Amino acid sequence: MRSASLTQPEVRGQILATAERLFRAWGYAKTTVADIARECEMSPANIYRFFESKAAINEAITEVLLTEVEQKAEAVVAEQRPAADRLRKLLLEMHTFSCERFLKDTEVHELCAKAMREQWGVIDAHIRRIRSIVRGLIAEGIKSGEFAKADLDFVETCVNNAMLPFCHPQIVAEQFAKDHKRQAAAMGEFLVRALKG
Amino acid sequence: MRSASLTQPEVRGQILATAERLFRAWGYAKTTVADIARECEMSPANIYRFFESKAAINEAITEVLLTEVEQKAEAVVAEQRPAADRLRKLLLEMHTFSCERFLKDTEVHELCAKAMREQWGVIDAHIRRIRSIVRGLIAEGIKSGEFAKADLDFVETCVNNAMLPFCHPQIVAEQFAKDHKRQAAAMGEFLVRALKG
Repeated sequence: MRSASLTQPEVRGQILATAERLFRAWGYAKTTVADIARECEMSPANIYRFFESKAAINEAITEVLLTEVEQKAEAVVAEQRPAADRLRKLLLEMHTFSCERFLKDTEVHELCAKAMREQWGVIDAHIRRIRSIVRGLIAEGIKSGEFAKADLDFVETCVNNAMLPFCHPQIVAEQFAKDHKRQAAAMGEFLVRALKG
Repeated sequence: MRSASLTQPEVRGQILATAERLFRAWGYAKTTVADIARECEMSPANIYRFFESKAAINEAITEVLLTEVEQKAEAVVAEQRPAADRLRKLLLEMHTFSCERFLKDTEVHELCAKAMREQWGVIDAHIRRIRSIVRGLIAEGIKSGEFAKADLDFVETCVNNAMLPFCHPQIVAEQFAKDHKRQAAAMGEFLVRALKG
């Protein structure tokens, strides 16, 4: 694809899509900025106008993936159903998405695991957004009387920590063989019961 | 230390202690079986009589560490105190131990993280033992009437998953900076309240 007729955000998107495709095909380590430039039919210098390094491309790809998770979470929370149902569904959907992305696609898994190990800024921002989505859902449930009155900081912290084993790339990869989906459903139920008090 | 006068288990212990010391000093990757043999003043062939490979030494060192965690957990559960207090203490102690071992000692951290990623048999056995210790504690609490009647499989699975973020080497390393100890205490309280029903 020639980039001459594209807007700046479109070129950025083109570079990211190409980089992601090469990472999946060849692995992250073996893909160079020159490879990405050649596939995009542009010069490496042009790539560097958009991303200062291969690490920056990596971080941007991770961000796209994490934004997808957040949009899924927001969609579940926006449904017109009891908060308890939404919390159960949220946990299961995030778990299913994590399994699909991290287990079927080892390059994506390695990318996200690396991002978490190295504590990139995108991960922190993602965790804050997910926590805020879960917090909003719990607050709604308390307001409607569905959940018992509680210290919101306290329950939000605990619920998010309890959900983590079902969404974290490393844990999902380690536990997958062990009926983890059933365990995710059980955790949803456990949390709902705890919140109902 | 000469090994001629030692029993077989003592020689095995000597090899493990020496290997662990070298792994900490030089790193796991840089330490060879020949290095360990030289430090033990024995031949590499003699090492191989006890451990078939460096990986087997690695697994045995991990097992020693995991046994230490299990003994700590058993000691807390054996205390003469309400089950709720023991559950809170168990979570905090396992978290503190994980922080001490995994954060101050990056070689130990890498060894355990590798063991978990690669799903060594020792990890599975350890998880089963910890789950069984927690299960026993919950069963006691239900029997004494301190915790509400519940499906033991269900609550044990959920409580163990909820404790995982505070004991897993990867999560502990990622979350440590973020007031994780306070979060561990909050989770202990959350679980006790959920179990009391």
